[in-house]
Formats: sequence, C-alpha cells, structure tokens
Amino acid sequence: MSQKVRIALDAMGGDHGPSVVVPGAQIAFNRHPDTEFILFGDHAKVAPLLERQPGIAGSRLVHTDVAVRMDDKPSQALRHGRWKSSMWLAIDAVKRGEADVAISAGNTGALMAMAKFHLRTMPGIDRPAIAAIWPTLRGRSIVLDLGATIGADAAQLVQLAVMGGAMARTLFNIERPRVGLLNIGVEEVKGLEPVREAAKILRDGSFAHIDYSGFVEGDDIGKGTVDVVVTEGFSGNIALKTAEGTARQFAGYLKSAMSQSLLTKIGALLARDAFRTLRDKMDPRQSNGGVFLGLNGVVIKSHGGTDPEGFAAAIDVGYGMVRHELLGKIGQMLNRHALETSAARAVAGAAS
Amino acid sequence: MSQKVRIALDAMGGDHGPSVVVPGAQIAFNRHPDTEFILFGDHAKVAPLLERQPGIAGSRLVHTDVAVRMDDKPSQALRHGRWKSSMWLAIDAVKRGEADVAISAGNTGALMAMAKFHLRTMPGIDRPAIAAIWPTLRGRSIVLDLGATIGADAAQLVQLAVMGGAMARTLFNIERPRVGLLNIGVEEVKGLEPVREAAKILRDGSFAHIDYSGFVEGDDIGKGTVDVVVTEGFSGNIALKTAEGTARQFAGYLKSAMSQSLLTKIGALLARDAFRTLRDKMDPRQSNGGVFLGLNGVVIKSHGGTDPEGFAAAIDVGYGMVRHELLGKIGQMLNRHALETSAARAVAGAAS
Repeated sequence: MSQKVRIALDAMGGDHGPSVVVPGAQIAFNRHPDTEFILFGDHAKVAPLLERQPGIAGSRLVHTDVAVRMDDKPSQALRHGRWKSSMWLAIDAVKRGEADVAISAGNTGALMAMAKFHLRTMPGIDRPAIAAIWPTLRGRSIVLDLGATIGADAAQLVQLAVMGGAMARTLFNIERPRVGLLNIGVEEVKGLEPVREAAKILRDGSFAHIDYSGFVEGDDIGKGTVDVVVTEGFSGNIALKTAEGTARQFAGYLKSAMSQSLLTKIGALLARDAFRTLRDKMDPRQSNGGVFLGLNGVVIKSHGGTDPEGFAAAIDVGYGMVRHELLGKIGQMLNRHALETSAARAVAGAAS
Repeated sequence: MSQKVRIALDAMGGDHGPSVVVPGAQIAFNRHPDTEFILFGDHAKVAPLLERQPGIAGSRLVHTDVAVRMDDKPSQALRHGRWKSSMWLAIDAVKRGEADVAISAGNTGALMAMAKFHLRTMPGIDRPAIAAIWPTLRGRSIVLDLGATIGADAAQLVQLAVMGGAMARTLFNIERPRVGLLNIGVEEVKGLEPVREAAKILRDGSFAHIDYSGFVEGDDIGKGTVDVVVTEGFSGNIALKTAEGTARQFAGYLKSAMSQSLLTKIGALLARDAFRTLRDKMDPRQSNGGVFLGLNGVVIKSHGGTDPEGFAAAIDVGYGMVRHELLGKIGQMLNRHALETSAARAVAGAAS
C-alpha cells in the first residue's frame, strides 16, 4: 500500500451520478486528507463539478462516455460496459494496482458481475459475498451475505464465517470475534440442512480466530449478540431490507405521534436534541457501504439513491478497509484456515 | 357455529401458564361477552385464579396434570402429551366440535405437531403455515409462513398465497387482496427457483380472489405495499424476528436519547401522549397471535412470554377468525381454486 489511500471512483454510478459522487468525495477528503482519488466518467459532466471542490480539484479524471445503467442486467452490463464503462475502469484501476479500492453507487448486480469477472475470487473462496456494518444496541456487527449469491451450501457458509470473522477482527480490533449462524431457532435440530451442517463444521473445527457462538435469530442482529452474523444471501437480503423498512416505519409513527397536539409539538421542540441523536443513530447513510468480500481487490457498493453525505460514508468504509489492510489480513486468515476449510469441504462432501 | 364463540384454552401453556392465561381470558371476555371458554389444565392451579375473575368464573375447567414443557421437542411432546396434555385437550375440543378455536401460549413446535397430527391438513393443502397480522404504515398486512415449515416449493408457495388471500379477504374485508411474493429484488430474473416458479403460476393462473402484485422486498412489508406477503418459513421467520429486533433497537435508542439532558426530559414529559401513541403502535402484544392455517380447525399460537394483555390479543385474533367464519371461507376459496391449484401442481411438476 502506498502512503496515501488511492480510491477509484465510478463517477457516473448511482441515481444522481457525479452530482453526488464528487461532493461526496470532497466530504470524505475533509475527514481523510491522506486520500487520493481517481475518477472515471464523462469529462464534460464531472470536470465542472470537480473544479468547484477545492480539496480534490486536482484529482485525476479519466474520461469515458460509457456508463452502466441502473437497470442494466449483469449480463448486459458485462457485454456493453466491459473494458470501457466508468464502473469497469474503476475496478480495473484496482486490478492494475493503480488504486487500493474501487467505489461505485451503480447497480449491484453489474458491479458484482464485473468485480467477480475482473478481480476473481481469492484462493479458497468459492463465491464473493456482500457484507455490511450493521448498527446494533451494543455497537456494530458485520452481517453477510446480503445477496451476492443465494442458496449457499455448508462449506460456503463456513467461508462466509471466516471472511466475516477477518473483517470484524480487523475493523473492530477484536482478537476472536463471536460468529453466529442466522437460523430460525437456537436449538441444534432447527433450520435448513446447510445451516445445521455449517454449525457442525464450525463447532467441531479448530477455527483459532473465530469464537463460534452457535445459532442466532433475527432479533439477535439488532441486539448485537454476536460480532458477525452469517447467512446465505437470500435470507440476509430479506433481513437487511426488513430492518430498513421497520426503521422507516418506526420513524413514520414517531413523526406523526409528535405532531398530534400542540403539547406534543412543544415537547418535540424541547427534545429536538434527542431527535437529532436518534436520527444520527438510525441514519441509513451512516451505514452506507456494502463491502464485496472474497475478491482479489476491495470493492465497495454505495446505495444508488444516497446523497453526498451517504456516499462519503461508503468512501469512509473503503478507506478503513485499506488503512487496516483488511484484504491482506483476510488472505492471511484464509491461509491459516486453509486446513480447516479443506477439512470442512471434506466433511460437507462426505455428508452430501 | 354456535351463537357464542367457544374458545378452548391451554391454561398451562407459556412461560407463566394460568397466571397469564386466566386473566388474559377475562380481558378478552370484557371485549367480547359473546365468548365461552373451556380451560384445560391443573385444577389446583387454575381454579383459584378462575374464581377471582367475575366474568369467566363459571367457565368449564377440565382437569389434567400433564403439560407440554416449553423446551419439549415436538416428538417428545407428541409421545408424552398426546391424549392427555392440556395442549392436546384444547386441540381435541376443536376436533370434537366442542370448541371453535384452540389457543395456546405453549411451545410452537409441539403445538404445530399436535395440531397437524390431530386436525390434519385441509384438502388441497400439503402443509400448514403460520400467519401473522403485521402492523404497517398503511394499516395491517398478513405475512406467512413464519416458520411452520422451511423450504417450500412453488406449489406450496401458491397454496400460501391462496390461504393468505382468503385470510386477508375475510379479516380485512377486501374483495381481491393484493398478494406479493417476498424476494430479493422486483425483477423477474431474481431470486430462488421456487419463488420465480410460484410467480409464474400466480401471474399466469386465473386466481379470481387474489390480485397478484409480483415480487416485494423486505422493506415493502413495513410499508404495507401489499395485503399479503408470501414467503417460505425460513426467510419469513427471519424477517419477523429481524423486524422485532429493529423495533426494540429503535425504542432503546429513543429512550436513551430522551434522557440525555434535562431539556429532552422535559420535552419527553410534555410529549408523553405521543410516546403513548407510539408505544401502542409498536406494542408487540397488539399483534400477538400466530394463526395456524391449512388445518381442519383453527389454532392460535400466542407468544410464550406475553402478559395477560398480550394473551387477550391472541384470543381476539381467534375470536375474529371464528366470527368471520374464516375456516369455511378458506375452504370455499380452496375449492374454487382447486382447478388452479391442480393446474399449478401440473406446471410445477412439469418444470421440476
């Protein structure tokens, strides 16, 4: 890693393209002046915005007039956008070692397809995953996979546990992160076959850097019962979206309850600092930034509809991943776990 | 159905047994005086509590000293509790036509196993489901299956759609309830094979009493995008628990934010009516009562740890199901859908 953290930005990604990406980069730069950006996108659209940002005006800007659309299917995006789109070029900068991390607010399926195609999965990893940092009552947890792929088998769930464990260990500075498997009950007999099989492997194997804590249920995520919640992508995505929906629902109820009478309105006015605290706590922008794990390179996916503050949060996540040398540490842990993982495969193979 | 709604209660079920069930029954009776209870449980424990409740003191009490434990496995419960436990006897009262509905706060697995064993599934239904009434920003929706079984195939998902549709039609009085399939994206290509296959059947079939609305995502549940959200039990259970966890998390943040300074405390005091409204809105006791669908009889599962108010809410759900003749209406809809369902089976069979 160079002295500076070199960040490749897909300037055309997301619902608002450069009008969010460029000011977002400036916000992140204010927090981390040891950052260097390379932006990929339409020069005519990006350059004028870039000039207005004093801190990052001198950033390198690479022109391309090809952009992946938000509704492109992964196969379309690969066909039309490979080699030349702003999304591809950002990933390519990581591949060529010109950047330490690529960040895009473009469409998830296309970004994952391109990242997987170009960066390839790490040795010992079958499939990449999307991990998010989830705010909890105790602090923060990592939840994965949030929908990179669906229907993981036992060995793949174990790989998720190892990668999530490495991420928690690095970002949260915990020696042996507690890792739980998301299930519909905590009893051993409960749940889908691959989940029960993965539990067996994690319990019986010697995973030195993971404190396997057994099954957890949906309500354990918000409680922060464990540092890492492992699930396959279908249920992980549903859990994430359901939590977002419930938070919005609660916020909606709160808002209408607070305006129900003059007295409650005055109360709300007096307590406005509390609402500001609450808003910050629940602000989805604070936890923006899905981390693609398991690839030979760091790629961060920002929400497509976010604003500059939210995009800056995604850059922060990427910055943290690079500064903490996460990729190298995951690689090291994977190597250490190579024996366990191959044993796991053998067990899973024998069981299937 | 008799004039009165006859409700069989497992008086020993739940974490607190008769000390919650008996006063809960009194609360429900106050709201619905056209209710008649039969209680099953330990006479020595139940009778003294019953005598203290003026409205329901004259209820029939059937003695048994066998109770299913909260940690019994379904197979254990069936072995030790069949024919004689309070849970079994409540279900048996429905089977014998002495009660219109059975309600238990006992363990879910045991209750489902006994209900399935004794009442059997309705013609055209492979497996029973657990449905809940979910509060949303628009009102209420029905979500099923919440964990009765896991890993439904396409035909079973279609059966869930039909049963959920019938429940919404009856309880919410909607001619053609909007029904959505829970998925990780709204595009046709997304998601697990059975979900995509079920979508095809629901879209192409002629389901006169369902307005099939396509895929919905986790955040659509809280929004109330559709009247009925259909998913298999694993992801449904995870969605339910994750929403509960997020609601608790939000409430925890709110409480601590409101006590952060004297000013916010005064504000909270002035706005206390608003917090009362909010608490009522988010009160999990209000939506207590999982409905077992697809059996030849109505069985309601209350949360095991609830209080009398929560148990009364579960009784309310059972009361509503009986008063609206839900079971008969589901049966009618199943008959009407028999053609579609068998067509669905054929399609699913041909596709697999």
